[in-house]
Amino acid sequence: MAVQTHRLQVETRGNCQVLDLTERIRAALASGSLRSGTVTVFVVGSTAGITTTEFEPGLVNHDLKANYEKLAPENAYYKHEETWHDDNGHAHVRASLLGPDLTVPLVDGELVLGTWQQIVLIDFDTRARDRTVVVQVMGEE
Amino acid sequence: MAVQTHRLQVETRGNCQVLDLTERIRAALASGSLRSGTVTVFVVGSTAGITTTEFEPGLVNHDLKANYEKLAPENAYYKHEETWHDDNGHAHVRASLLGPDLTVPLVDGELVLGTWQQIVLIDFDTRARDRTVVVQVMGEE
Amino acid sequence: MAVQTHRLQVETRGNCQVLDLTERIRAALASGSLRSGTVTVFVVGSTAGITTTEFEPGLVNHDLKANYEKLAPENAYYKHEETWHDDNGHAHVRASLLGPDLTVPLVDGELVLGTWQQIVLIDFDTRARDRTVVVQVMGEE
Repeated sequence: MAVQTHRLQVETRGNCQVLDLTERIRAALASGSLRSGTVTVFVVGSTAGITTTEFEPGLVNHDLKANYEKLAPENAYYKHEETWHDDNGHAHVRASLLGPDLTVPLVDGELVLGTWQQIVLIDFDTRARDRTVVVQVMGEE
Repeated sequence: MAVQTHRLQVETRGNCQVLDLTERIRAALASGSLRSGTVTVFVVGSTAGITTTEFEPGLVNHDLKANYEKLAPENAYYKHEETWHDDNGHAHVRASLLGPDLTVPLVDGELVLGTWQQIVLIDFDTRARDRTVVVQVMGEE
Repeated sequence: MAVQTHRLQVETRGNCQVLDLTERIRAALASGSLRSGTVTVFVVGSTAGITTTEFEPGLVNHDLKANYEKLAPENAYYKHEETWHDDNGHAHVRASLLGPDLTVPLVDGELVLGTWQQIVLIDFDTRARDRTVVVQVMGEE
């Protein structure tokens, strides 16, 4: 049993941008030696989250964004914005709801994802960011 | 330290059906040998999710469904449905919000759940499905 | 590779109270010997959840609470409350949406959190509780 740590640097635009990390995570796994265990994907920071979705333009460019705007509107009142004199209260609220982590079983060298299920980062912040995503692989060769 | 993989096949009806997986996961654990570590429960596919709740009829047959209908209504506009000419945009949005994974500590052979806390799959799709749930157990005997 | 289990007892007031667990989790890690792997934080019970957020008064005392009140209002109708003749249907709905678990990579002895990213418990129940949080550390020294 071993631990292998990979770090992805991801340039994001914010405003509910959805980025498909699946191939970069598969490449990280291929550069390591573990074939059975778990893969934990974690985004550092409190205005982005990790989940899975079908990476299809209608969903990732429209529907998810429209739904988050409904759940925590950008222009609602957020006391957070008074503290920092900034504009990303909605980004914090959305990110804490979604969560920064995802753990996917690794079986026979493969992530157990569905064909139409990709691992995505959603960046809720209001500006471009350079994000760090940690991919922690635990298991056996 | 070892990895033991179990697969559950779960027939679902969709439309926010909530299924209690706790006993099947306990049976999978009993068929293995690990007693200390983590149990990761992961549903394959992008229109269902995994969480915990009290498996009580009022909650699982009414309240959760009513709340998801409020959060992402079935009959709202989803661009996803134009892409595929289908009707499950709301299912994708709900599933990505809930997330497909859950990790529960395993201590002295037991999942550390509360008495009124069950592990559930929520199927948001609009038709019956045959779901695969992977139960990845990592730890020591 | 080893497993080390820590238990935190956390007194909560409920009503969407947000508690910062980060320093208590770091202290638990310091009392153990593992420096590389994963840390799974799990709250026992079905009316609380675990996530990360910036632990800043505006967010944790106002914005998160206001948003959960929007997502699943306290005074909406919940069939759960007829079952038990209680008043915490909204707490169950919110907790199942947020989820009871969080897994954070542990690298070189440190949780890979951002500077403004704390690990929090949100207690949605309607009364004071004595919560158990299990911190399961898996990995290498």
